[in-house]
Amino acid sequence: MTKPMIQIALDQTQLPAAIEVAKNVESFVDVIEVGTILAFAEGMNAVKTLRKNHPDHILVCDMKTTDGGAILSKLAFEAGADWITVSAAAHIATIGACKKVADEFNGEIQIEIYGNWTMEDAKAWVNLGINQAIYHRSRDAELAGVGWTEDDLVKMRQLSDLGIELSITGGIVPEDIYLFEGIKAKTFIAGRALAGENGKATAEALRDQIDRFWN
Amino acid sequence: MTKPMIQIALDQTQLPAAIEVAKNVESFVDVIEVGTILAFAEGMNAVKTLRKNHPDHILVCDMKTTDGGAILSKLAFEAGADWITVSAAAHIATIGACKKVADEFNGEIQIEIYGNWTMEDAKAWVNLGINQAIYHRSRDAELAGVGWTEDDLVKMRQLSDLGIELSITGGIVPEDIYLFEGIKAKTFIAGRALAGENGKATAEALRDQIDRFWN
Repeated sequence: MTKPMIQIALDQTQLPAAIEVAKNVESFVDVIEVGTILAFAEGMNAVKTLRKNHPDHILVCDMKTTDGGAILSKLAFEAGADWITVSAAAHIATIGACKKVADEFNGEIQIEIYGNWTMEDAKAWVNLGINQAIYHRSRDAELAGVGWTEDDLVKMRQLSDLGIELSITGGIVPEDIYLFEGIKAKTFIAGRALAGENGKATAEALRDQIDRFWN
Repeated sequence: MTKPMIQIALDQTQLPAAIEVAKNVESFVDVIEVGTILAFAEGMNAVKTLRKNHPDHILVCDMKTTDGGAILSKLAFEAGADWITVSAAAHIATIGACKKVADEFNGEIQIEIYGNWTMEDAKAWVNLGINQAIYHRSRDAELAGVGWTEDDLVKMRQLSDLGIELSITGGIVPEDIYLFEGIKAKTFIAGRALAGENGKATAEALRDQIDRFWN
């Protein structure tokens, strides 16, 4: 099984702050994400700037696209994104429109799992040729103290069994990595944990755990 | 029942084009919406600019907020939005976080209905004090030829009965207005139909139909 990568989510509300964090972490992350907050704050200029600053990283634009799929995904891919996120709540026609644009740009679609989705929905994503999804505790649910549950892990294993690689996020810490053993994990995503003073040490601790459980 | 208002959705990918459309339509629309596409393309500068240009209109920022509710809604309200949209697929904690920020700004939350939502979800929104939602055909579903169905109208009446005022969108034309009679309609939203050469005539035709069915 391919080893999961480490992804930083940039959720600053000002581009200069995001640029600085990205420069600080570039040596120890594989994937750089323009978070929804940053994308709404600064527009596609954020994607363009980070693409220019980090030509060799995988760059994600976390739009959580819910409608207007063709235009939104084109905006992000033209600005330099490699992957964009599409909400699981989007109409399947929207998801298909995004996938079509992604194919034109050699980009990829990640389904961002929110709301009352079903495994039938997941099969429909796979039928469109999509093989990535993002599984997370909602930031607000996390703030409300809702942790990783057995229900989460069961669903993650089922998605993995469908061939979907998962990027996993929501208060990721090295001590939790073992929970996801056996799952096709594409990336582990963190924001503040990688951006802070101990970011490099956190990334190393994450890689140690990844090496232990994916080998 | 209050008469529905007319709302223009600005979904241009460049701010100058959106500014021009907004100036052209300001005399015959009540509500100006910074659409998701424009917000992602140009960031909160789009909201700030339209607020400055149109101080007396209701200004909506269509973020379809799905996570990070407190920060995202603060961004939009600080930029000058009166209403922001939050995805029905968001965790209830996210929706609550948005409502709390809205209250601080005397703003309002509109639930944007996507995905597999239930009437129980709708009751939870009402319990948070939210009394607006957006009901639409998805732009992509519309492109795929999916029309207004009896199922749509039943759900809209049920939401209306819960006390939720609906903004209705997705290829709105004057000839369809009669379909929504008896529903608490807050606005009818259109984009290209109002932005084009015949925009003023379309707005007048919409108002004629509104006067006929809400009096």
